[in-house]
Amino acid sequence: MTSGGDAPGMNAAVRAAYRMARHLGLEIVAIRDGYQGLLNGQVEPLDTHKVDGIERLGGTILGTSRSVEFRTPQGVERSLRQLDRHNIEGLVVVGGEGSLKGAYSLHQRGYGVVGVPASIDNDVGGTDVAIGVDTAVNTALDAIDKLKDTAAAFHRAFVVEVMGRQSGWIALQAAIGGGAEMVLIPEVPFEIEDVVRRMKEVQASGKTHFLLVVAEGCKPSAAEISDAISKRDDVEFESRLTVLGHIQRGGSPFTFDRYLAARLSLKAVEELAGGRSGSVVGLRATKIAATPIESAVNEPSPFNSETHRFAEILAG
Amino acid sequence: MTSGGDAPGMNAAVRAAYRMARHLGLEIVAIRDGYQGLLNGQVEPLDTHKVDGIERLGGTILGTSRSVEFRTPQGVERSLRQLDRHNIEGLVVVGGEGSLKGAYSLHQRGYGVVGVPASIDNDVGGTDVAIGVDTAVNTALDAIDKLKDTAAAFHRAFVVEVMGRQSGWIALQAAIGGGAEMVLIPEVPFEIEDVVRRMKEVQASGKTHFLLVVAEGCKPSAAEISDAISKRDDVEFESRLTVLGHIQRGGSPFTFDRYLAARLSLKAVEELAGGRSGSVVGLRATKIAATPIESAVNEPSPFNSETHRFAEILAG
Amino acid sequence: MTSGGDAPGMNAAVRAAYRMARHLGLEIVAIRDGYQGLLNGQVEPLDTHKVDGIERLGGTILGTSRSVEFRTPQGVERSLRQLDRHNIEGLVVVGGEGSLKGAYSLHQRGYGVVGVPASIDNDVGGTDVAIGVDTAVNTALDAIDKLKDTAAAFHRAFVVEVMGRQSGWIALQAAIGGGAEMVLIPEVPFEIEDVVRRMKEVQASGKTHFLLVVAEGCKPSAAEISDAISKRDDVEFESRLTVLGHIQRGGSPFTFDRYLAARLSLKAVEELAGGRSGSVVGLRATKIAATPIESAVNEPSPFNSETHRFAEILAG
Amino acid sequence: MTSGGDAPGMNAAVRAAYRMARHLGLEIVAIRDGYQGLLNGQVEPLDTHKVDGIERLGGTILGTSRSVEFRTPQGVERSLRQLDRHNIEGLVVVGGEGSLKGAYSLHQRGYGVVGVPASIDNDVGGTDVAIGVDTAVNTALDAIDKLKDTAAAFHRAFVVEVMGRQSGWIALQAAIGGGAEMVLIPEVPFEIEDVVRRMKEVQASGKTHFLLVVAEGCKPSAAEISDAISKRDDVEFESRLTVLGHIQRGGSPFTFDRYLAARLSLKAVEELAGGRSGSVVGLRATKIAATPIESAVNEPSPFNSETHRFAEILAG
Repeated sequence: MTSGGDAPGMNAAVRAAYRMARHLGLEIVAIRDGYQGLLNGQVEPLDTHKVDGIERLGGTILGTSRSVEFRTPQGVERSLRQLDRHNIEGLVVVGGEGSLKGAYSLHQRGYGVVGVPASIDNDVGGTDVAIGVDTAVNTALDAIDKLKDTAAAFHRAFVVEVMGRQSGWIALQAAIGGGAEMVLIPEVPFEIEDVVRRMKEVQASGKTHFLLVVAEGCKPSAAEISDAISKRDDVEFESRLTVLGHIQRGGSPFTFDRYLAARLSLKAVEELAGGRSGSVVGLRATKIAATPIESAVNEPSPFNSETHRFAEILAG
Repeated sequence: MTSGGDAPGMNAAVRAAYRMARHLGLEIVAIRDGYQGLLNGQVEPLDTHKVDGIERLGGTILGTSRSVEFRTPQGVERSLRQLDRHNIEGLVVVGGEGSLKGAYSLHQRGYGVVGVPASIDNDVGGTDVAIGVDTAVNTALDAIDKLKDTAAAFHRAFVVEVMGRQSGWIALQAAIGGGAEMVLIPEVPFEIEDVVRRMKEVQASGKTHFLLVVAEGCKPSAAEISDAISKRDDVEFESRLTVLGHIQRGGSPFTFDRYLAARLSLKAVEELAGGRSGSVVGLRATKIAATPIESAVNEPSPFNSETHRFAEILAG
Repeated sequence: MTSGGDAPGMNAAVRAAYRMARHLGLEIVAIRDGYQGLLNGQVEPLDTHKVDGIERLGGTILGTSRSVEFRTPQGVERSLRQLDRHNIEGLVVVGGEGSLKGAYSLHQRGYGVVGVPASIDNDVGGTDVAIGVDTAVNTALDAIDKLKDTAAAFHRAFVVEVMGRQSGWIALQAAIGGGAEMVLIPEVPFEIEDVVRRMKEVQASGKTHFLLVVAEGCKPSAAEISDAISKRDDVEFESRLTVLGHIQRGGSPFTFDRYLAARLSLKAVEELAGGRSGSVVGLRATKIAATPIESAVNEPSPFNSETHRFAEILAG
Repeated sequence: MTSGGDAPGMNAAVRAAYRMARHLGLEIVAIRDGYQGLLNGQVEPLDTHKVDGIERLGGTILGTSRSVEFRTPQGVERSLRQLDRHNIEGLVVVGGEGSLKGAYSLHQRGYGVVGVPASIDNDVGGTDVAIGVDTAVNTALDAIDKLKDTAAAFHRAFVVEVMGRQSGWIALQAAIGGGAEMVLIPEVPFEIEDVVRRMKEVQASGKTHFLLVVAEGCKPSAAEISDAISKRDDVEFESRLTVLGHIQRGGSPFTFDRYLAARLSLKAVEELAGGRSGSVVGLRATKIAATPIESAVNEPSPFNSETHRFAEILAG
């Protein structure tokens, strides 16, 4: 099952789960449309034809959803009945924080479940990096590269909003990779005056452009910042806004995400096959390891202040 | 000289002008930063090393500007003195509508100038298609493809703002190419109710997503439409906004733009070398032809109602 | 039906045919795997769900084939019986030269057929440009751009084989777009000595790399040229070979191909619906026009010597 | 200095070294064209203008070389004199195995040097992953994805040669990411019969294509394998060859490589600034760590048999 916000690499995870199940001589079926599909009993067979070639597709061929009903005790109960009715002995849930919490509810009721973290924001526990992050960051970076192509042309400030409600991960990576002059993230409070001060510094250094990366969760927002600096007389740069939005969730997954998805999914099926469950499988340094699902869902989101410092040094 | 809003392919045009001049045994120099650079006498030599490999770079290595001063009679006068001072006998101006009008001012004063139309909006006369359009549309299309990857996941409406203040060209091409459910362009007035009606139709047809492409110049704007439909109770789709902005001006130019830029620029230099000037060189059907600059700057922007009809048929 | 060598944009053509048929109130079905599938009676229904989103997929979701049996009179006969058996009153064939010849056999037997030219080599009559050419050239160009990135590093000659057995179209476009130092095409005979002479010229000009684009149909072949120049002591550049092969047939189609595919396919269905058949629909200058299929299959492949001259001027 | 085979991300490393030096109040200059440039005294200043925006460029703006002279004792001696003459107190060498061995020679003579591993083959010690690997693998994967688009069309075997003379890293990652039916690497010996056996298995499973990824260093080579299977009557698939070659060295670096390059280069400058040298800085699990250069150059290339097992399970 894939669940919650979709992330590039989910299909590679589905394919790998299928292959591993076959390799171990297990039967495997797919649940469509996440927890809502589970509630509705949307169970369908998988075969070679269905999974062949899906590793390169963005999104999820199984569909996904956010289910309000599942979050109720009755919802969990009904899900367990559906799993039983379809003779599904163990469940691999590919998704983000909410999806893993859902998996935890099933685990608490004694059902065998393993979580595979997928979330472009990288705000999910149990892994150093979640499926989808690398592709999302590369999509943001590609947009930033294009802005830098055009930045030379006019004395302009480009304000780019990237994804990340609670987490500045995408923003920091894209800012470092793209050579942004400034990056704003939800973890580090700021004011418009900080932006203006930095713009003046950059102006004084002789640069003719100013690239500002802003995570979605920032207050004030990218649009508000862009408006505010457009009205200022004391900065020369004219501001132009780009809001990337959901394009960061799409696109063919890059190698890192496909490989990570394959490794995590193979491990997840191995866990279930070995009679182990109640865990989230994740990348820990260079290894794939299982973390008890309870710890994983309570793991704080990784804010790395060193990365933030890097971004500042590189901004020059 | 490259001038005005930058467009992918400008560098390919610069390289081709250099090569053609060399081929014809002419000397060629570059003027930096458009008309403002001309006013400032920013003239610099070109050589093989400087132009080698630039065909694949976005933006313009020569810089560009929008010059208020040039638009005054004194500005034109001073430009002519600079051209004379640097012994520049003819000028190739690569740019959009405003830039070609600038070229027209010089022509009216008897100076030899040829315009090469470059404008991602395709709102410039003298050519069927301007340099930069193909790349800009492909950039918009790539974003739309990524949204469609993720569209399957939730019942969502994606509202995408693409460039085009006066012209729906990019919007129409991207909507047709990307299989959008609706497209809104400045040339065809509409109301929010039209959008809602179409959303209900699509909903009724069983589709689980709604992709709406909106040109920048539309009223209400993409952001306003997205807000409005989010507040409606009678449509199921949740709305998500993407504003592509200036990323459509950047990126490595695609083949069509490089080839077009080369053909136009070769022709422009040939015109000047042959003692012909006061024209805009453009693609007319399959040939490169010169149009008197006066006609070119007054040519109406090409709105093709057949293209609009195609978009509607394809939206299904 | 899609037939013959696959080309990016075939799926966009399928989708557009479906939409146009629906728009005109006609029923439409798909034939799988080209003429071989027709012989086998592999007819299947199309619906919105099947065509939704396929415009962005490379290859062809309908499959394709090269059928030996179809080329026999008995094969044609049996095909007509299958078409009759499935109540198919008219056929749109999307494919290259061989596929259009196949369509011509059906036409000669009085069956209503319209051809839609798709061929990455652009070696098919009835159109200025075939579906798939723009994407194939962009794929070749992307490879050449990457080689030029690395060309600065060593004093190397890169020999790149691109598609084109009879036609130098892809090679010329990619060479012009990518700033190649030389291009070899089947239409213009050459010897190894010509390559060596050009390499020495480039060497003398102070350039530290040499990029040579060779069409697949050239004799000697790219591999033979690369070997030969590696053995020469009188050129400094070390030679490195890239053979792009079938990657040029794949990839998500670019805008031009999707738009062309849509326009051609809409027209093809309109022709059949209007009781006109026996034609190939193609791009003629800026319009879509129908050419009698007999003329189309006998139209000579367009070799443009002006394009070849451009490539030489641009090579510097 | 960048040295040896170029790798995407080298420019990001140069930019980061410049920024870190500035941040620490140090002066920094560039040496052009690797060790050969050092021997020639090709030392040039760096400034903000020169490094601005280079993070997104493939190749290396500093040039590189393979120097035979440097490998002699006299070469090392002369290099030390050049470094002294230009008052260069410490050297950061960005490059592969040969380049780090060169750095070791300087270290053995008491000169302060830090190595930054960059090699698309990932065959360099002192780091889990070298700069350039992620981009090279993504380039290979993109090619494989395009082949899979077209694979559905005919019953074909695609044989793709990717880089890796001693190491199967790129081949394995690309095969896993791209869903190849088989992968051949230098670390695991094989015979043509193994390929044929696997093809028959795949044929029997009902798949209509066979994608084979072959590392450059394999014997027999990709071209030889492709020839051999084309001649076999007992396999149905027709074989088509793609040789990617040096395109894997080019292209704009992806996020992972830019971020890795920045982290390694910042650390390298910090080491030199702190009076530490004679090391290679590398990624070790999630941290950046310094390894004595002597150990690094003797570290065996990481062949991971688990990755090979993954590839086999995923091939199905």
